[in-house]
Amino acid sequence: MKIFACGLALAALCAGPVLAGPVDEMMAADAAFADMAKTEGVPAAFAAYAAEDVRMFPDRAQPYAGREALIARFAAWPEGAELSWAPVEGMASEAGDFGFTWGRFVFTAQGEAGPVAEHGKYLSVWRKEAGGGWKFVADIGNTNPAPETAETP
Amino acid sequence: MKIFACGLALAALCAGPVLAGPVDEMMAADAAFADMAKTEGVPAAFAAYAAEDVRMFPDRAQPYAGREALIARFAAWPEGAELSWAPVEGMASEAGDFGFTWGRFVFTAQGEAGPVAEHGKYLSVWRKEAGGGWKFVADIGNTNPAPETAETP
Repeated sequence: MKIFACGLALAALCAGPVLAGPVDEMMAADAAFADMAKTEGVPAAFAAYAAEDVRMFPDRAQPYAGREALIARFAAWPEGAELSWAPVEGMASEAGDFGFTWGRFVFTAQGEAGPVAEHGKYLSVWRKEAGGGWKFVADIGNTNPAPETAETP
Repeated sequence: MKIFACGLALAALCAGPVLAGPVDEMMAADAAFADMAKTEGVPAAFAAYAAEDVRMFPDRAQPYAGREALIARFAAWPEGAELSWAPVEGMASEAGDFGFTWGRFVFTAQGEAGPVAEHGKYLSVWRKEAGGGWKFVADIGNTNPAPETAETP
């Protein structure tokens, strides 16, 4: 009986999920970041996933640095505006503690003549922190031509 | 006399340049990349510094992948257009084989109503290749408000 249980445990180990590599970990962090933006709002999600020394590169604005500055900027997030995104792929350093993800975003807001939507892509650089979690150290995006063309992968 | 010479040698060692870290190496690669764009043209410089598996995120266009695709795109570089840039700072992984630089760029081209200039910022992700040199694995930029504001660091 003990041998049988042991065999089962071994089978469970062997059939278990492959340990996630750093790219999987970053993709999961980015997806969780996007989920949090939906459920708790964009400012809360950016504050939660930004590293203390983050570098921000907002489109059509000057770059700035630091999580504290990020929180101050996102405090002015427009009422009713939404930013949703999904990571497409990532790349990591050989040591597995640094890398980036990129994906596509849609930003929607209430414009003067009704709702407006902007489509684009973003790149986030991620660093594995001392506790083992991932924080983004840089974030930049730009727009795609609208409407999305047949080129879209 | 021998002791004096020895002291001099030690002083020379202590006063010698600090060995460049990975951030210095990436900043130097980015600066050399910018210099090459000036002297040999933007398409040649991008072809020289791009990793085989590079990911490109051009503003107002769809993303694409691969150095071969990059070379094909840059073959259509407009006659007389210039792209100049300078890195501002960088950040590296702890192992020193991966990181990013960011900086500011100016793109100038001949428009229908005369020369046009676009100012912006870029982020390049760099990876140390097997030979020890650095190649960029991702490149993305976006525009700044024009004219440059007093916010500019």
